[in-house]
Amino acid sequence: MSYSDLSRRLPFLKWAKRYDKTTFVADSIAAMVITIMLIPQSLAYALLAGLPPQMGLYASLLPLLAYALLGASGPLSVGPFAITSIMTATALAATFPEPFTSQQVVGAVVLAFMSGMFLLVFGFFRLGFLTNFISFPVVTGFISASAIVIASSQLGNLLGIEVDNASFFNVIASTVKLVDQTHLATLLLGLCSITFLFIMPKIIRALVLRFSSSEFVADSLSKTAPILAMLGSILVVVLLDLEHQGVALLGQIPQGLPAIQLPDLNQMEWSQATWKSLLSSALLISIIGFVSSLSAAQAFATKQRQRINPDQEAISLGVANLSAGLSGAFPVAASLSRSAVSFNAGAKTPATSAFTAVGMAISCLFLTPYLYYLPIVTLASMIFLAVLSLFDFKAMQRTWAFNRKDFSALLLTMLLTLLNGVEWGLVSGVLLSIALHLYRSSHPHVAVLGRVPETEHFRNIERHEVITDPEIISFRIDESLYFANARFLEDRVNELVASNPKANHLILMCSAINDIDASALESLFEINQYLKDADMTFHLSEVKGPVLDRIKRSDFLQQLTGNLYLSHYSAWRDLTSQPLYD
Amino acid sequence: MSYSDLSRRLPFLKWAKRYDKTTFVADSIAAMVITIMLIPQSLAYALLAGLPPQMGLYASLLPLLAYALLGASGPLSVGPFAITSIMTATALAATFPEPFTSQQVVGAVVLAFMSGMFLLVFGFFRLGFLTNFISFPVVTGFISASAIVIASSQLGNLLGIEVDNASFFNVIASTVKLVDQTHLATLLLGLCSITFLFIMPKIIRALVLRFSSSEFVADSLSKTAPILAMLGSILVVVLLDLEHQGVALLGQIPQGLPAIQLPDLNQMEWSQATWKSLLSSALLISIIGFVSSLSAAQAFATKQRQRINPDQEAISLGVANLSAGLSGAFPVAASLSRSAVSFNAGAKTPATSAFTAVGMAISCLFLTPYLYYLPIVTLASMIFLAVLSLFDFKAMQRTWAFNRKDFSALLLTMLLTLLNGVEWGLVSGVLLSIALHLYRSSHPHVAVLGRVPETEHFRNIERHEVITDPEIISFRIDESLYFANARFLEDRVNELVASNPKANHLILMCSAINDIDASALESLFEINQYLKDADMTFHLSEVKGPVLDRIKRSDFLQQLTGNLYLSHYSAWRDLTSQPLYD
Repeated sequence: MSYSDLSRRLPFLKWAKRYDKTTFVADSIAAMVITIMLIPQSLAYALLAGLPPQMGLYASLLPLLAYALLGASGPLSVGPFAITSIMTATALAATFPEPFTSQQVVGAVVLAFMSGMFLLVFGFFRLGFLTNFISFPVVTGFISASAIVIASSQLGNLLGIEVDNASFFNVIASTVKLVDQTHLATLLLGLCSITFLFIMPKIIRALVLRFSSSEFVADSLSKTAPILAMLGSILVVVLLDLEHQGVALLGQIPQGLPAIQLPDLNQMEWSQATWKSLLSSALLISIIGFVSSLSAAQAFATKQRQRINPDQEAISLGVANLSAGLSGAFPVAASLSRSAVSFNAGAKTPATSAFTAVGMAISCLFLTPYLYYLPIVTLASMIFLAVLSLFDFKAMQRTWAFNRKDFSALLLTMLLTLLNGVEWGLVSGVLLSIALHLYRSSHPHVAVLGRVPETEHFRNIERHEVITDPEIISFRIDESLYFANARFLEDRVNELVASNPKANHLILMCSAINDIDASALESLFEINQYLKDADMTFHLSEVKGPVLDRIKRSDFLQQLTGNLYLSHYSAWRDLTSQPLYD
Repeated sequence: MSYSDLSRRLPFLKWAKRYDKTTFVADSIAAMVITIMLIPQSLAYALLAGLPPQMGLYASLLPLLAYALLGASGPLSVGPFAITSIMTATALAATFPEPFTSQQVVGAVVLAFMSGMFLLVFGFFRLGFLTNFISFPVVTGFISASAIVIASSQLGNLLGIEVDNASFFNVIASTVKLVDQTHLATLLLGLCSITFLFIMPKIIRALVLRFSSSEFVADSLSKTAPILAMLGSILVVVLLDLEHQGVALLGQIPQGLPAIQLPDLNQMEWSQATWKSLLSSALLISIIGFVSSLSAAQAFATKQRQRINPDQEAISLGVANLSAGLSGAFPVAASLSRSAVSFNAGAKTPATSAFTAVGMAISCLFLTPYLYYLPIVTLASMIFLAVLSLFDFKAMQRTWAFNRKDFSALLLTMLLTLLNGVEWGLVSGVLLSIALHLYRSSHPHVAVLGRVPETEHFRNIERHEVITDPEIISFRIDESLYFANARFLEDRVNELVASNPKANHLILMCSAINDIDASALESLFEINQYLKDADMTFHLSEVKGPVLDRIKRSDFLQQLTGNLYLSHYSAWRDLTSQPLYD
């Protein structure tokens, strides 16, 4: 392995060489900001995943170190992520109906391992392009529906009641049924937390900007609102003795760092169905984790004029997930919102991730005893507010205005995600996108052409005043030719020939054809033969280089009854019997 | 319903109006030629389908009348068809393991009904375009593999042994095992039949051409070889008393016309699995029947400058299949080879089909007693020779030379058709074609452009000597933009920006972009934003009308940091700081 290969696989070899004091200071400040954000987030996302809170903290340790070693993006913040957390919750609920058991904990660890494996496969076999098939409308529909699912999953925690979290509709139904059992103290604390979290960042910003002109300081300090909410609510719980009022608290969290170990699977005695269910969930978790991480990494890389290698990102995210599994955590991914904060806080290199891991390790060692009194409703409030921004109504409006077909894919994904769960929604959305694309390209736009008077230009006879010649059928197809539209082309030729009884020549303008496959070539052969049988000649004009190269691999040009013309005008000039006036 | 609507649905209203004596004579002659071909073929294809011989005769009666009423193509010869017959055999063998039972007979009738229903759905809901997704390589692979399967299915009949026809490999394995039990008289009769069928048409043609100059008469008479082989072998069987030598004979065939009735399904007590299996087989039979019929109809229509409406063809083929079901026959389709004979014999209107049905009815009424002595091996020989022409080695070579990816789809379809049966082969082939198309269009060709000196042309910097400007990145993407290549475009921009640190402007030449979807639009938004953050401007040149119309449905142009240029040259002239020398 050459050094350049090695430094591609281990990007830190590159940035460590020119690491200096300025970069260190910038990275450290960013790491501090992110650590303060990550402490409440990691607890909240563990709650969201239906897992013990320490698993959220563990997901913010080793995976971050792994990314620092293998990742290329400085601001990217790998760790617990809302969407993959709810996907983990859904996967575990579907696989192990009994909640809060050691089965679920081990299941989450296994999901992290499996996701890591899938991501490594994506990276090493360069399969990252497969994620491109998740179109923008599908992502929008999926994430917006996930936001609704996530928000609704916290209804029970906000009201202090035990709701059935099996599916979106179970949540709604059981919430409606149990709403009269609402625990008032919990609800009040929740409403206070939400108000605090919503207003406080703005107040902090405004206050700071009154005394300092630094937008950066104001922004960074405004990110402390969640940790202030944590401290405040712990204080309230202790002072008002809410523990004995029945407010659910986080409770005992094991102090210290996680043990590095493989899960004891022999004890679990899982059936084949269990493994299958975990595998398919892990595949989708890794795909969604990869898509969101990659788009975040790419957004910041282009801003800094850096190049992100998608395969390498898949590998580093894969190793991050494997190390999540090794340290008893659930699947991780990069969070776009956290990464944006990290970018604005000045993160320069992946060392930021390493420093954040150090901060989280310190929290694990010294902070956990104080978290006992943290009310769960405060975390639920954080989740509630965090996912509001995920519901992308603007993107929906934009898609509706742009193209109804794309919107239908969005809507289907959204509805199925709500009705049948995240996995169904995603898979159906992708299949519908592909079907719509195939439908679209199998019905390409075709223009029958005429000559714009006194010029060498040819335009659609339906849109322009043009000269036509009854002896010549002249048309253009606006799509690459492939199997799905090859017969469409034959149909159109058949139609044009039948409706132009005087025609002796047919010229196909190929300027919009970027590619041609074997089926389309066969159709050209057939058209050539049909026209020959009807005593007509077949001509091609403005064929692109790569298409011509490909056609030349067959004997089509030898069989062609007509000619190949560089420009449509030269074909017309050659074939028309009309005067040209020039 | 207006008269033009009516005559579109009932094409005979159109041609019957101008039906005259000349047309009548032409159609009658063609019908005679086809009837003589169809008598042995219908018996042979019933044998191929593993069904009683009279079912083949029945498949050549009512379905032909139905097509005459509803179909538009004069020469198209609907009736028993080799490929759909072997598909029927496979479907029945998979659904009802016990051969030659009334279950199988009723199953075939139900398949005909179901195929008819599917075809009507295709026609009325205009779903015919779905068949376009069966690409040429998949059809070639499928038909060639089917030819091998069909030929091998007749090995047992040719050797006079009972082989296991469950799959291609069962046939080969059991033939090898039982080859020492070969029935010599049967084999000899088979070899004689094959030789006769192979040589006789040429001899007849040569003889006729010696006495007459009419190619048509020579061709038509050469088509009598199979019926001569029938008569000859019946004579041999009777004269040599081969019945008592153990040569398998066709035996008793019910005399007369089929009863018009619905099958008695209550007696069958079929499970849900049985129905499901029949339904999926019927879907594939109807698709393959439709594809082959439509391409045959279109080939002849274009020659005669007629227009074929695919939806109407689906409907007429659907009704033909329903009437096959009603008259106790198996699924029918148009045979390309028979249609070609009909075309050459001068068939003008679908009345040809009606006259052929009359001919077949006469055969049912008067010929059946004489068929008792027809040896099965003669029919097997006919099948054997008929499918030789289906194995399209030339098309394979052509596809291999043209494009390896297309060839891989062909090979996969062929192998899976042989290994796992016709249904698997077809479905996997279609899926692979779609996957290959998506892969191809998700990795489009991108050219970084430079200016050809002293001109306004821009060409790939890797292929041509061109002028570049370090401040301008100028490139072209050779594919419509959609979700599968949207991120690819972002990747390339990311790469180009990272490798051109001096660039201030990026111009995307859009001349090859025929369409754009919401995902690609989102990528343009992102690219615009990335470039803005990197202090660069983003420009588009040569955007096509329909693409521009679509982009204008969003506020992209308001957000665009750069401009929209009609030509790439005008963009360059505007942005470059270099002298232009003109």
